[in-house]
Amino acid sequence: MTLAERVLDGDVRAAARLMRDIDDRFKSAVAELKALYPRTGNAYILGITGPPGAGKSTLVDQIIAAFRRKDLLVGVVAIDPTSPFSGGAILGDRIRMNRHAEDAGVFIRSLATRGCLGGMSRSTMDVVNVMDAMGMDVVIVETVGVGQDEVDIVSTAHTTVVVMVPGMGDDIQAIKAGILEIGDVFVVNKADRDGADRTARELTAMLEMKHPEPGAWQPHVLKTEGSRGIGIEELIEEFEAHREYLKVSGALQRLIEERNAKLFADTLRQELFETVFGHITENGKYREILDGLRNRTMDPYTAVEEVLAARAFS
Amino acid sequence: MTLAERVLDGDVRAAARLMRDIDDRFKSAVAELKALYPRTGNAYILGITGPPGAGKSTLVDQIIAAFRRKDLLVGVVAIDPTSPFSGGAILGDRIRMNRHAEDAGVFIRSLATRGCLGGMSRSTMDVVNVMDAMGMDVVIVETVGVGQDEVDIVSTAHTTVVVMVPGMGDDIQAIKAGILEIGDVFVVNKADRDGADRTARELTAMLEMKHPEPGAWQPHVLKTEGSRGIGIEELIEEFEAHREYLKVSGALQRLIEERNAKLFADTLRQELFETVFGHITENGKYREILDGLRNRTMDPYTAVEEVLAARAFS
Repeated sequence: MTLAERVLDGDVRAAARLMRDIDDRFKSAVAELKALYPRTGNAYILGITGPPGAGKSTLVDQIIAAFRRKDLLVGVVAIDPTSPFSGGAILGDRIRMNRHAEDAGVFIRSLATRGCLGGMSRSTMDVVNVMDAMGMDVVIVETVGVGQDEVDIVSTAHTTVVVMVPGMGDDIQAIKAGILEIGDVFVVNKADRDGADRTARELTAMLEMKHPEPGAWQPHVLKTEGSRGIGIEELIEEFEAHREYLKVSGALQRLIEERNAKLFADTLRQELFETVFGHITENGKYREILDGLRNRTMDPYTAVEEVLAARAFS
Repeated sequence: MTLAERVLDGDVRAAARLMRDIDDRFKSAVAELKALYPRTGNAYILGITGPPGAGKSTLVDQIIAAFRRKDLLVGVVAIDPTSPFSGGAILGDRIRMNRHAEDAGVFIRSLATRGCLGGMSRSTMDVVNVMDAMGMDVVIVETVGVGQDEVDIVSTAHTTVVVMVPGMGDDIQAIKAGILEIGDVFVVNKADRDGADRTARELTAMLEMKHPEPGAWQPHVLKTEGSRGIGIEELIEEFEAHREYLKVSGALQRLIEERNAKLFADTLRQELFETVFGHITENGKYREILDGLRNRTMDPYTAVEEVLAARAFS
């Protein structure tokens, strides 16, 4: 049996192995992903992001538990931050999710892909597809929102949740328009802290200023205390309301199509570059370019034009 | 006169216009960059990174002033953070550098390129090249080290400075190996704060554990108080020591070559994708792929293989 067949058969070890192959970027993984693709598109994808220290992992832990009480199968893709500055606190957070490690209805996978432009985004979508094909009802993608890559990843979810903490809203200037754009649901976590109401109020005011089209989704701001499980049921209800909105409005179909288009584009970008770069390395053109750049008889822009022209694209 | 000719002639407005064209990704900028390329390779490129709140911009302000006291021309490329969470404090920081705005020997340019993989890295190198061709003796690239992209950018500098603050070293686990790898010079800024000595000591111990090859550069940890200008002269001396090491060891030549190779690769990745994507959009293939993905008769991986095969790369 192929890995893909074993994954479809519910073999968790095969799924883990395939995800490791994806993270390591083994070529063999592509054939398996192709075989799984027709069986994807059923999972509800929930993206959760927010700054370090917002208590995202504790919140995710509670969200997993709430979905499990509804007997839903839950996959979690935790994206390890690529920044050398975001630190080890996150590793500690990951451990908090471990209480679900013994639960066969929960499948948690960390991804640490880095160093390759677009690689993280593609690997994440591939791993989500494996979890989707495995039959997970919900796939949670959790990232620390420290870079554009991470935000891009989480934005491909069906419902994007932005987690904040009290105090962040004190300075409206400090909240860039970007996060208002990406969130479908906003959470002020650690709501027992001073200023939670103010942060929630200011966020709500900013969201209301956006004047959405009639019939469009209006994001709400919810307050939670992840560590004590407070506000979790309301949060799950909000997810369900958003999912229902997506279905009824037709937006879900559009999101699924955009996700597929992005996976295609990311894969194309990566494969094109690797193919052409491999080609010019092999035929000696790359060495010639490097020599030209060194003695300045060649510039990088002309070199690219020459490589493009040699392949006759247009 | 072309923009490039005006830039070489010392026309600051032409340089600003060309940098805007680069940031906006105007095709016309490429011809100008080609013309400027033979005149690059003279500037000393200093990369400065560190987490938000480390006081980088105040430090950069002092470093600019120190170079100006030596009558050196200074260019600064300030990369705006792409994360929606890194906040408005950085905008405030930028303003602190404004005291140099009236100084004709200082040229400061912010870059906010985002939303395109590899685009920020390429734009930064292009803008640094313009400053280099303009005759700037030193070009400082300042990024907030919040994402892999930013770290990649700063790593292409000749000397990479990592700015930390007291307290970060309290938990060795919190400092990922990554920052030890990228830094040539480490700075504990805000050294009047509690714990500065401890942070410096722990960083030094970690750096010494690395056991560099004999003759290799051994990074030191310096303490500064950017706001009061304390430790700046020692920092400038350390930069000069590192630059001297780069020249004598031959590492500078290797760094310059790696930078050119990276600019070529980033440009190739971007142009290849745009060319091929434009081509398949025009000839209807992309529409066909999207239809196939929608009704699941096609998967993204096979679609990429078909596009690659049609262009006969190998």
